[in-house]
Amino acid sequence: MKIGIIGLGLMGGSFGKTLKRLGGYEVYGYDILETTMLKAEMLGAINGELNVETAKDIDMLIVSLYPSSFLSAVEKFLPVLKQGAIVMDFCGVKRQTTAEMKALLEKYPHLVFIGGHPMAGREFSGIDRSVSTLFEKASMILTNVNADIFVLDKVKNFYLSLGFGEVVITSPEYHDRAVAFTSQLCHIVSNAFIKNEIASEHFGYSAGSYKDLTRVARLNPEMWAELMIMNKDNLSLELDELIDNLKKYGDALKQSDKAELKSLLSEGNERKLMIDSRKK
Amino acid sequence: MKIGIIGLGLMGGSFGKTLKRLGGYEVYGYDILETTMLKAEMLGAINGELNVETAKDIDMLIVSLYPSSFLSAVEKFLPVLKQGAIVMDFCGVKRQTTAEMKALLEKYPHLVFIGGHPMAGREFSGIDRSVSTLFEKASMILTNVNADIFVLDKVKNFYLSLGFGEVVITSPEYHDRAVAFTSQLCHIVSNAFIKNEIASEHFGYSAGSYKDLTRVARLNPEMWAELMIMNKDNLSLELDELIDNLKKYGDALKQSDKAELKSLLSEGNERKLMIDSRKK
Repeated sequence: MKIGIIGLGLMGGSFGKTLKRLGGYEVYGYDILETTMLKAEMLGAINGELNVETAKDIDMLIVSLYPSSFLSAVEKFLPVLKQGAIVMDFCGVKRQTTAEMKALLEKYPHLVFIGGHPMAGREFSGIDRSVSTLFEKASMILTNVNADIFVLDKVKNFYLSLGFGEVVITSPEYHDRAVAFTSQLCHIVSNAFIKNEIASEHFGYSAGSYKDLTRVARLNPEMWAELMIMNKDNLSLELDELIDNLKKYGDALKQSDKAELKSLLSEGNERKLMIDSRKK
Repeated sequence: MKIGIIGLGLMGGSFGKTLKRLGGYEVYGYDILETTMLKAEMLGAINGELNVETAKDIDMLIVSLYPSSFLSAVEKFLPVLKQGAIVMDFCGVKRQTTAEMKALLEKYPHLVFIGGHPMAGREFSGIDRSVSTLFEKASMILTNVNADIFVLDKVKNFYLSLGFGEVVITSPEYHDRAVAFTSQLCHIVSNAFIKNEIASEHFGYSAGSYKDLTRVARLNPEMWAELMIMNKDNLSLELDELIDNLKKYGDALKQSDKAELKSLLSEGNERKLMIDSRKK
């Protein structure tokens, strides 16, 4: 199977490395940065450059870029792709790119478009930080555009064979609503948390809970700002809901209402137990 | 060295197990629950029961209970402790127990009182979850009452010899201000986060950031409510500061102000890098 990857950062680079580690794939990659291209070849993340020649034979084109770059990045490759080639983006929000794919379908009806979001990441960016184990046990979200059930099944099994833990097929709308909470809100909370004045002087006073809470305070501001603004309707609602809940704890503290505070903590504790118990 | 432990839950049980694993300690324990006492003996966390007889010879008495139980728990043991015996509590807030120790000093001037807070924990409670590795590389905070510099140094080296990563000596006031942020606020945020409606339906949509952020949503509500209410002045301020910061992200989202959102994210990112770079 021949696969093209546009964008060889943390995700694209890790994807190439995963394919190369498993074997049986010819991987052609493209990145706008020449140094990234060189590194990708040296690190064995790709077999060669993705260009209008090598693109002709690929079975799947992965676009692992910021959503705003999707359209311009695929422009020159789509006309040369073969009948039935699958085009997927790896963007962290799915409404916009999926809508763009729908529009592209008019011009390229011989192609198969599927949105994708590998629910994996690290608090680092770039090919230097890419690893062939990034996707192990991760969820892969698919937002289908025009794939039929047989192609979808093939794609699902492809991702499972790469080590993904599960493949979920959903609508771009539901995806964006869910990740506003499970991913974007986590990053905002972590990033805001570390801004409390005392954070810069707490040496010796922190344990695991602080470490876990602030891990993703480190992030790529440009990328996350773009993803969050594109999903601002969902993310605003989730953030407002969290702030409202936090205020309840604050009120209980201010009123020295231990019974209320205990009740709030119990409720969260039970909710966590309930949610975890439903995990596979 | 003979050590007594009152309260054989997660912390007290783990402390006994640590001492027994390292060897060279005789450990006497007491817990109000008979089943916990039996478990502590079966699990090898203690050598025997701490009572008014065995307490006579101990060099150090550790009180690992809720702060509200400290006074009544030590009452019967203090009169029998030998000259120079060290009395420490392991409570998560230090102003109240340290003040109580100061008062006890009037009556028991032959004893040495030091407040202590091992900055370690798990999202579980009870001796069943205690482990002899809980304190490895953790910080131990000491809030001294009447120990002289030689005793303090001995106590510091004692904790380092148990595997603690560092020992910090500070005031009860500063301790309570710091842990309001590094520990208590983390637990509130995690506990509140999971209350967003969508949390109960996000299967397949979460990655490491969600897992880390919600880990300590699971907690002991009774204990944390007590610790938080005792520290409500500090904790309220930290929570208000976080909510104010979170609102800034919310405003940027609502105004679709990508530049401002990016700037907020950059600021948090740089702060995280700065703080982490100063770690030993």
